[in-house]
Amino acid sequence: MAATLIDGRAVAQRVREQVAADVAVFTAETGDQPGLATVLVGDDPASAVYVANKRRACVAAGIADLHAHLPADVSQDELVAHIQKLNADPQVSGILLQLPVPAHLDANLLVELISPDKDVDGLTAVSAGRLAQGVPGLRPCTPSGVIELLDHHDVELQGAEAVIVGRSDLVGKPLIHLLLQRNATVTVCHSRTRDLPAVARRADVLVAAVGVPRLIGADAVKPGATVIDVGINRLEEGLVGDVDFDAVREVAGLITPVPGGVGPMTIALLLRNTLTAARLQRGL
Amino acid sequence: MAATLIDGRAVAQRVREQVAADVAVFTAETGDQPGLATVLVGDDPASAVYVANKRRACVAAGIADLHAHLPADVSQDELVAHIQKLNADPQVSGILLQLPVPAHLDANLLVELISPDKDVDGLTAVSAGRLAQGVPGLRPCTPSGVIELLDHHDVELQGAEAVIVGRSDLVGKPLIHLLLQRNATVTVCHSRTRDLPAVARRADVLVAAVGVPRLIGADAVKPGATVIDVGINRLEEGLVGDVDFDAVREVAGLITPVPGGVGPMTIALLLRNTLTAARLQRGL
Repeated sequence: MAATLIDGRAVAQRVREQVAADVAVFTAETGDQPGLATVLVGDDPASAVYVANKRRACVAAGIADLHAHLPADVSQDELVAHIQKLNADPQVSGILLQLPVPAHLDANLLVELISPDKDVDGLTAVSAGRLAQGVPGLRPCTPSGVIELLDHHDVELQGAEAVIVGRSDLVGKPLIHLLLQRNATVTVCHSRTRDLPAVARRADVLVAAVGVPRLIGADAVKPGATVIDVGINRLEEGLVGDVDFDAVREVAGLITPVPGGVGPMTIALLLRNTLTAARLQRGL
Repeated sequence: MAATLIDGRAVAQRVREQVAADVAVFTAETGDQPGLATVLVGDDPASAVYVANKRRACVAAGIADLHAHLPADVSQDELVAHIQKLNADPQVSGILLQLPVPAHLDANLLVELISPDKDVDGLTAVSAGRLAQGVPGLRPCTPSGVIELLDHHDVELQGAEAVIVGRSDLVGKPLIHLLLQRNATVTVCHSRTRDLPAVARRADVLVAAVGVPRLIGADAVKPGATVIDVGINRLEEGLVGDVDFDAVREVAGLITPVPGGVGPMTIALLLRNTLTAARLQRGL
């Protein structure tokens, strides 16, 4: 029997509607609109599309769209000054520096300049530490979207065996802590794991976030498991996940497609983070 | 055949001698002595003993002993001012606020005030985030001591299955990242794990850091595994670890005793962190 599909577009739409409703209440109660400051440097076409999508989503949710497009040859000092200005601006709830930036800029240094309370991508060391220590803060959007999908489908996490394939700062490592906070028994696999299918087969909840097309085959999935595919690999045939979808859907209980699974969740959680940031800054 | 014992006292002594030699070189090259500022608040007898031991170890390693003993009724504001003074003092390489502090003080807020570059206990959110992201910074002493013991015995970590029992901010969670950086496949267990012995039995390297006397029995250990016991539980019969030592030593390949295993490593790594902090502050 084929697995039930997780419809990321539908769940993301629900989250966006809920954020819009919450933003309306926040704005009515405080007299202030949450605002997202997007920073796009240079003319990378893919980055331009990503930023445009985020800005449109903000407007639809009632979040102020505070955009700046800086030239590709902007100096590090100018960008530092820009971020410091955004940190100090009370209209700015969240700051999103679209990555990658041109090679002459120090992306890590620029990200670390972002005030942790405005770090809606959850990329700074402070945000990573707050997540690890379980204190309030802004969590990375994509891993938060994974948890949201699991919750939407009432997937039991407490006591479940969760296996994460991939240990990136963006997805794999934050998920360790998000899943631990939900009382899962968490295992992290990666390229040096000896028998990946055997380890993955232990999973009640399997998350693939490694960027290798169709790495996870049916032999790596326990019958009935929930399989979340964070991978988005561009092949000639189109977008392909880290999971061999056609084979695994015959084994899994629940599965995300690519595209239309985790992908749409990221912007939805960015909107929620922007509202969370606005609240954090007011001690709400 | 009984397991080989890991002699934490001997390994700690070697680390301390190496730190002393490195401190001598640092002091000769820079003209400055690394300094550890210990802060003891009130008159808890156990805390007084711990701080006295750390201070003695500093002196033995050539690290300046910069101690302050504040009264139990010190105000939060006074302690804040004291920590800020230490942050600004170039003679102070590392700051150690001995915990617990009296109940009227906000320990978390005080710890977070410590400059991350002087956070020799590795307790701040920034330190936790730097560890998770694998960027330079100060790592918590006890988990670093665990890695040191494993290295001393040439325990293969790459591709090994490492299982951590316990998810504390002090030991379990930092160990996830330290073991991942060594390319182990890492699993974290805790009180909600469904079948702890079965999960623990997968481990090539098993670390118990949960604070439950003799939780890990022989049924939870794969024959030949390396077993590291971070637990120090005070029972009427004396100090007891989280591992049922007498039973597990018949199964394991390598095992730490309690006391005399991980315990002595903590101060040794505190000394090393103080030297690392002194170097960080000079960009070395």
